[in-house]
Amino acid sequence: MPRIYLDNSATTPVLPEVAQEVLRVMTADFANPSSLHSPGIDAAMQLRRDRKVVADALRVSPEEVYFTSGGTESNNTVLFGVAEKFRRQKGRIIVSAIEHDAVLSPAKTLAQDGWDVVFVKADTDGKVSSQAIQEALTDDTVLVCLMLVNNETGAVQDVAAVSRMLKQVGSKALLHCDAVQAFGKIAVHPRELGCDFLSVSAHKLHGPKGIGALYCKKEVRLPSRALGGGQENGFRSGTEATELIAGFAKAVELCADLDAARQRVAALNRQLREGLAAIDNAQINSPADGLEYILNVSFLGIRSEVLLRALDAKGICISAGSACSKGNRSHVLTAQGLSAARIDSAVRISFSRLNTPDEIAVLLDALKEATATLKRGKV
Amino acid sequence: MPRIYLDNSATTPVLPEVAQEVLRVMTADFANPSSLHSPGIDAAMQLRRDRKVVADALRVSPEEVYFTSGGTESNNTVLFGVAEKFRRQKGRIIVSAIEHDAVLSPAKTLAQDGWDVVFVKADTDGKVSSQAIQEALTDDTVLVCLMLVNNETGAVQDVAAVSRMLKQVGSKALLHCDAVQAFGKIAVHPRELGCDFLSVSAHKLHGPKGIGALYCKKEVRLPSRALGGGQENGFRSGTEATELIAGFAKAVELCADLDAARQRVAALNRQLREGLAAIDNAQINSPADGLEYILNVSFLGIRSEVLLRALDAKGICISAGSACSKGNRSHVLTAQGLSAARIDSAVRISFSRLNTPDEIAVLLDALKEATATLKRGKV
Repeated sequence: MPRIYLDNSATTPVLPEVAQEVLRVMTADFANPSSLHSPGIDAAMQLRRDRKVVADALRVSPEEVYFTSGGTESNNTVLFGVAEKFRRQKGRIIVSAIEHDAVLSPAKTLAQDGWDVVFVKADTDGKVSSQAIQEALTDDTVLVCLMLVNNETGAVQDVAAVSRMLKQVGSKALLHCDAVQAFGKIAVHPRELGCDFLSVSAHKLHGPKGIGALYCKKEVRLPSRALGGGQENGFRSGTEATELIAGFAKAVELCADLDAARQRVAALNRQLREGLAAIDNAQINSPADGLEYILNVSFLGIRSEVLLRALDAKGICISAGSACSKGNRSHVLTAQGLSAARIDSAVRISFSRLNTPDEIAVLLDALKEATATLKRGKV
Repeated sequence: MPRIYLDNSATTPVLPEVAQEVLRVMTADFANPSSLHSPGIDAAMQLRRDRKVVADALRVSPEEVYFTSGGTESNNTVLFGVAEKFRRQKGRIIVSAIEHDAVLSPAKTLAQDGWDVVFVKADTDGKVSSQAIQEALTDDTVLVCLMLVNNETGAVQDVAAVSRMLKQVGSKALLHCDAVQAFGKIAVHPRELGCDFLSVSAHKLHGPKGIGALYCKKEVRLPSRALGGGQENGFRSGTEATELIAGFAKAVELCADLDAARQRVAALNRQLREGLAAIDNAQINSPADGLEYILNVSFLGIRSEVLLRALDAKGICISAGSACSKGNRSHVLTAQGLSAARIDSAVRISFSRLNTPDEIAVLLDALKEATATLKRGKV
């Protein structure tokens, strides 16, 4: 049975060209870029080219891009790095309540460690307003964390507005943006967003798992959390995963035409929304102006996992929320103020530019059949 | 020009079967193992099988094996994790002076942070004795770090003797072993070594870069340094790099016959030592009973980098020391008490089971020619 994969916010299929690039570097050009012989120097040059590809996509300098093992490491590095940097004075850390656990969980640990951590709720449309953040702002706030695209609903956050607000009120707080779900889908330009740190991950844009990057503004120094051989300009030691970095860069190159892909995905999203209008217990949780790559929808009366399994039996892959928080009630939909009944029946359908209108048609048929059957089962 | 690669302690060529396994998981089986649909469940099962392969090779339980981004992360996790665990009382940390920078550098940071860090020197044969560690031991020692095989000289450390000594004197110190250069070459069994933590890395045994593992004894809890989705049983969050883990497991399977490979490499080492006897300025720095995979040798009067480049021009890859510490004078040879002249002329020739006697013959011819020419150039 050919599968229909609509769980692209969990991870994306690796493009064949990316896989070939990983394979090439892993076999033909496997040398350690710290080695001083010719293959080592070649590996270092490849690494430099790859870093420039990622930096160019972000419109930043290559020396502001540090490769990490993924979004979680990037996010942890910022939270714990800032905490280390300001550990003598401490102060307030403001975190949006709809962040990924890779931001929320370090923030909770810092709260236990004596930091004044404030979680700012989203409005009912899933967006955290600049005003809400401003209300939480204090003179001793050292860090504000706001993601660019929420991983469960696709809600796009106005990070640039928060940056402007921080400047307007003269705050010295640093601004971190988790752009893992945005990079490769919409323009992600840290300088224009006005953030000091920004996290991205390769496997969300058809690259390999185990590799990501952290943008760290040149003017801001963070202490290293990975000490050793001094790779990544001393900031992140460990032999560089050159084959993954090459695959990451290739994936970034292949998604350069963001608009074409987005139009394609927007059409799929529209097709799905139109079809869902005919399913009477379907209630859409994603905002109307959310990023089209994600559609979060509740089928009232049917538990998320039950619907997920019914679709899985038909070869369709969707998610009951973030892949990383299996089993727990969504903190994102909770922060959005939705009812328990709506949260417990929510599923996430997430597209990539590889999906087709035919697949959405099959999904809609399957949803109609499954919801009818499962509702009947309930009565 | 076909290259002769003798820098296997820096990194190893990825075996074709390993590359194919990485490719398979990266493309056909790319799902996120946290996803609840069938491909996600399949990915989780693959991950469980792969973890068991690594655990079996170490003769430990799968739940004692945590995948990391490599040796550096594994080592940092232990040093900083133990420091976090005992941060209220602090105390002494004993580190052998010949450790890799991924252990030394965190130790130096902890020293700056108020920890009583003691570096124990090696004897002239490159080994750190259990007695020397015992002399440094105090009642408040919380951690002892001793690598299994030194990455520059191949000196094998008697970790089991240190473990026995710690038990005999009733010390509560935890014992960490960096086994990055040992795993895949000799038996690495943490329970028999008596250590609480042990680091390994895939790219030193013909696996991919960017993946390693940390053994953490069941009875010992370390705080997590990577918080988020709760992967790796809550110890190391971040989407698992399933394709790398699969490649790692395949590489471990392929090097199961340690003895056959070691005999093969020992013959190469013998061939090289015999040939070097005819080069009058060659002085071997590796101990006679060192692991045969590494031969460290000084060609007095010829700077390491100069010889490295001369061999590179002939298509032969060797190293001027650890790939991770390019440019700095070897702390390992310094700790061994060698003269500056000998350290500055030291090169590391490191084998894998893929090397051949013909390659060593070519190397010896090149060494004879290069040393004769370069010595002449000196005068």
